[in-house]
Amino acid sequence: MKRILVLGAGLSSSSLIKYLLDHSKEFDWKVAIGDYSLEMAEKKAQNHPNSQAFECDVYDDRQRSFEISKSEIVISMLPARMHYLVAEDCVKLGVNMVTASYVSKEIKALNEEAKKKGVLLLNEIGVDPGIDHMSAMQVIDRVREQGGEIINFESSTGGLVAPEYDNNPWNYKFTWNPRSVILAGQGGAKFLHNGRYKYIPYHKLFNRTEVIDILGFGRFEAYPNRDSLQYKEIYGLEDIHTMFRGTIRRVGYSEAWDVFVQLGLTDDSYIVEDSEKLSYRLFINSFLPFDKNAAAEKKTAQLLGLAEDSEIMNKLRWTGIFSDEVIGIKEATPAQVLQKLLQSKWKLGDDDKDMILMHHIFDYKMNNQTKHLTSTMVVIGNDKLHTAMSITVGIPVAIVTKLILNGDINLTGVQLPIIKEIYDPVLSELEAYGIKFIENETELT
Amino acid sequence: MKRILVLGAGLSSSSLIKYLLDHSKEFDWKVAIGDYSLEMAEKKAQNHPNSQAFECDVYDDRQRSFEISKSEIVISMLPARMHYLVAEDCVKLGVNMVTASYVSKEIKALNEEAKKKGVLLLNEIGVDPGIDHMSAMQVIDRVREQGGEIINFESSTGGLVAPEYDNNPWNYKFTWNPRSVILAGQGGAKFLHNGRYKYIPYHKLFNRTEVIDILGFGRFEAYPNRDSLQYKEIYGLEDIHTMFRGTIRRVGYSEAWDVFVQLGLTDDSYIVEDSEKLSYRLFINSFLPFDKNAAAEKKTAQLLGLAEDSEIMNKLRWTGIFSDEVIGIKEATPAQVLQKLLQSKWKLGDDDKDMILMHHIFDYKMNNQTKHLTSTMVVIGNDKLHTAMSITVGIPVAIVTKLILNGDINLTGVQLPIIKEIYDPVLSELEAYGIKFIENETELT
Repeated sequence: MKRILVLGAGLSSSSLIKYLLDHSKEFDWKVAIGDYSLEMAEKKAQNHPNSQAFECDVYDDRQRSFEISKSEIVISMLPARMHYLVAEDCVKLGVNMVTASYVSKEIKALNEEAKKKGVLLLNEIGVDPGIDHMSAMQVIDRVREQGGEIINFESSTGGLVAPEYDNNPWNYKFTWNPRSVILAGQGGAKFLHNGRYKYIPYHKLFNRTEVIDILGFGRFEAYPNRDSLQYKEIYGLEDIHTMFRGTIRRVGYSEAWDVFVQLGLTDDSYIVEDSEKLSYRLFINSFLPFDKNAAAEKKTAQLLGLAEDSEIMNKLRWTGIFSDEVIGIKEATPAQVLQKLLQSKWKLGDDDKDMILMHHIFDYKMNNQTKHLTSTMVVIGNDKLHTAMSITVGIPVAIVTKLILNGDINLTGVQLPIIKEIYDPVLSELEAYGIKFIENETELT
Repeated sequence: MKRILVLGAGLSSSSLIKYLLDHSKEFDWKVAIGDYSLEMAEKKAQNHPNSQAFECDVYDDRQRSFEISKSEIVISMLPARMHYLVAEDCVKLGVNMVTASYVSKEIKALNEEAKKKGVLLLNEIGVDPGIDHMSAMQVIDRVREQGGEIINFESSTGGLVAPEYDNNPWNYKFTWNPRSVILAGQGGAKFLHNGRYKYIPYHKLFNRTEVIDILGFGRFEAYPNRDSLQYKEIYGLEDIHTMFRGTIRRVGYSEAWDVFVQLGLTDDSYIVEDSEKLSYRLFINSFLPFDKNAAAEKKTAQLLGLAEDSEIMNKLRWTGIFSDEVIGIKEATPAQVLQKLLQSKWKLGDDDKDMILMHHIFDYKMNNQTKHLTSTMVVIGNDKLHTAMSITVGIPVAIVTKLILNGDINLTGVQLPIIKEIYDPVLSELEAYGIKFIENETELT
């Protein structure tokens, strides 16, 4: 039996583990699931005869290297900062490793050593990063093979609530780590637009959205996502004119979220005095000018140049940020207070389903014509455990793990899924899980 | 002879060293001046018979402790991050130390050890921090002694160009470290207003100014300066309603500077691609939306909601930010590009004089009356070497050094100049240097 070690059994691992267990008899796999919480590991193992659940502290050096040494391959679904510990052991012990996270500098530095040992450290094979890389590179390589030249590339992804369950004024619910949503964008963004570098500071990010129309799903907006410039090199598009990556929300989300950013409510760098005893109303007042004749709502509207009965103000009022409810958490940063407020409001209901959208735009020149190609993926979750997020993150990881174990992928060193050898078989199998792209091409005149 | 060791012989040390040399015969002092640049040290020593100039690398442990061990007292005018090295040796070797910088956590932690050794580490005795603490505490203690209770305290300071030499549309020139001016405020600000904590994020700071009228000098504005809240405890004003510290500029500066902040031009966290080859015009364009039919000026005005012929736009045009001049510095951050541009425009001319303004407002209750007291200091520089900044930073340091050497101050441990024993004699002698406060009191009805 081949032993697969899965480290981390959180929500993002549920579809991944299900795939591995479902295929475990066919391929004679033993799926060992380690988590800090034994209960979590056991829940995901579901007493499957080919599973083994155990309590695992990744900072315990002896346990970690012992478990890795017994395994054929390791899948790390741990928080990103912990991957390095696992990767280092994997290289030392000659065990392949797969993660869905952005490759870190530390892991990149293991490339030579991993190659020497014949070890593969495959990263960024979840959804974003992951499916975005694979689906984009498949189109880019195809256009190139046909003699075309990509001139513009825009790619946006978003985790949202499925339309049927979309019943709040923000058209948004948390389908992933709430803290990441609250802090999103804080480093600002960089991209390339018509041959010019563009730099957007955090406090202008939610003001610089682009509208996306997705057939059958309506209108969305995308705000710039981190550093798009590095993908020129990664995708081999050095001469491209526009290179933009974005985060998708429903139209109207960003301009309302921007109010929180403008006021400073997303700051995570200091503690709010007396946060425990304050009401949300007093909290937001701390960010507003003093005016004894104006209520917090009025001051907010005035400071941001909004009408008091505007749609943005309605969204804000709905969150309860102007309510007299007491925050009740000690020594909280503004971002933590905001997260506490929104966690109850933007909670995905027990019967709600989530949705992942991915939308690529390619403009390319071929045979003296300029073509405009869009490629769109929409995935709706199955249930509370097998969410669209969990499926799109976990299934690519699971498929590629199978391909590596079966000897269909024979790479070594630190890799991303931007090579045909990886993306072709993975994307092909993903279609069986409803993860597929619809293309639409027009000619630009 | 008593040996005084001055570490750091930059502009801020010139008036300090002059005072020490001027008084060196009277008190039998040897003034040893160490700097990384021997030339700088020698220039400040001016071949005075009681001086000694030497090349000094503060990171050379042997040299540093040797020089300190030979001295009666050490004045560190080094960059703030280097004080700790000096302070540690001073405690070890039993030598007193004076700095004009904010006391760091690391230095605070030396308090017990310093007391045990009978060593005084006196910090924050320049102008801001320094004269602000002393002049405020003198009034606060006086009001308390008379049975009054301070209810509001606002204190603002600014380094500006003297009115006679104030000849550009920003009414501002660099009179101090330009980099600090470019990065000013990036941590945001906190203060107390009418009993409520107020938190202002960086991108709203230059929008939240207060106007100050200074008799004979006209109107100024102050934007919030860092964390004012900590001064409640330091000044013993736990029950105060308003506690605000600000940075003074001429009216109109902040709203124009805010354009740079809003666009992201003050960001110091990443490198601008091809910064060397870009013109300032292309640089600012990197922060503006793409619009092939609009010039950079028009896009700036539109993005900020300004008229193209507004006073703010005039200020921006005057800096040359829209010019085709090439930046010419490699791998520069946006903040470094902006500094390069402004360093030539905001340069203090050879015959220009600078000016330091300090303005306190105290509201206090006494005998059932509420009084409004303002206390204002204006200092104009003498010349290019003895600027108002150099005088107001250096002379308090020099005076307190004399008081310590003469045995008039007998404190130990980590101290600030908020005690009568320090501020009374220092403020009294400062008057001889034209550093004095004019008070004006009215009754609030």
